[in-house]
Amino acid sequence: MKERILTAAEQLFWKYGVRSVTMEDIARKLGISKKTIYQHFTDKEGILYQIIQGKVETDVSQMDCMAVETANPIEEIMMVMEMMRKNQHAVSPNLIMDIKRHYPHAYALFRTHMDQHLMKSILENIQKGVSQGVYRPDINPAILARMRIEQIELAFNNDFFPTDQYSMLDTQRELIHHFVRGMLTEQGFTVYNLYVNQHNHENTIYQANDADLATRTAE
Amino acid sequence: MKERILTAAEQLFWKYGVRSVTMEDIARKLGISKKTIYQHFTDKEGILYQIIQGKVETDVSQMDCMAVETANPIEEIMMVMEMMRKNQHAVSPNLIMDIKRHYPHAYALFRTHMDQHLMKSILENIQKGVSQGVYRPDINPAILARMRIEQIELAFNNDFFPTDQYSMLDTQRELIHHFVRGMLTEQGFTVYNLYVNQHNHENTIYQANDADLATRTAE
Repeated sequence: MKERILTAAEQLFWKYGVRSVTMEDIARKLGISKKTIYQHFTDKEGILYQIIQGKVETDVSQMDCMAVETANPIEEIMMVMEMMRKNQHAVSPNLIMDIKRHYPHAYALFRTHMDQHLMKSILENIQKGVSQGVYRPDINPAILARMRIEQIELAFNNDFFPTDQYSMLDTQRELIHHFVRGMLTEQGFTVYNLYVNQHNHENTIYQANDADLATRTAE
Repeated sequence: MKERILTAAEQLFWKYGVRSVTMEDIARKLGISKKTIYQHFTDKEGILYQIIQGKVETDVSQMDCMAVETANPIEEIMMVMEMMRKNQHAVSPNLIMDIKRHYPHAYALFRTHMDQHLMKSILENIQKGVSQGVYRPDINPAILARMRIEQIELAFNNDFFPTDQYSMLDTQRELIHHFVRGMLTEQGFTVYNLYVNQHNHENTIYQANDADLATRTAE
């Protein structure tokens, strides 16, 4: 039952945002009573906390896989974009800011994940890129990794990027390409251009299917 | 007298931070009584506010000059670095965070300046760079300009870049070079490399003179 509650709550939260979903809504979706939910969770933030905990574990596994399975650090970092694209449809654009503003305990878990696992993953990516000669040897990995993490959080901030003007995916795409390009050596550019050209065809198909989504806006 | 108070306060604030300087310290530096200061300003934040107001005006003039006097948008953006380098010696590394945390009224003035004048200046720089062919035509100026502004603020944040580990100047330099490089076309790289090579000699001299500064740390 606990797993079923988590799954139903996640679907509702991701679609409508956490604030507008009640315990009643979750119970109704499952055809159970609110009392049953309260047997497993103390409150809505308790459910959210466990959902994020699960997401963090999945994310850590995915990052480990990507580091191993990709041919080079450039491809590895661009794969994050592919992952975001796959998950984008299901997620309400204001979700992260909603959590940050109103559920500090659950948000802290997400933030710790960024500061630890994501920081480590980005640092390793940069060091690998430098040692393979695709990133500049004169960069300071700690400064750029910190900048990258704050960039990811910035893209979620709907004060700076209002969701009626920017699609979160466009913002993240802009920032990730800029981030990689700013580190490339000449050799790195060859690898990067190869990757971009390979994926242009797929992107075109994707964008055509995606054109009617309300979160996408004309640039 | 008002101007003399502003000048003396600025010197003390920039050197020791705003919080640790008292109205008494400012009066003593000028050999006047505290009462004389209170004839011109209601409190310490009032002095700080007028100092920042003056700085903002100077900054706007300097940005206008740089846009006109520099040969191209790449040189224009790198000139910011030169300006920071010239002003660096006089400024306590925690100054901006000190102001942000404890003097919200004065900080808001600085933040408004960034969101308006600096945003406009960066946007124009990007648009100029794109039209001259030195920046990529596929960038979204609004997204990158916003990112750049938040980057400048990030570099001042001593939670992320503790001043005993990072010199603010090194962090800003890392971020500004990464920012420009991430936008360059091949033609842009030629211009950028020319600029960097021209300035390498000057930088070497500067760094040698600067090596004993406590704010500079080994990388």
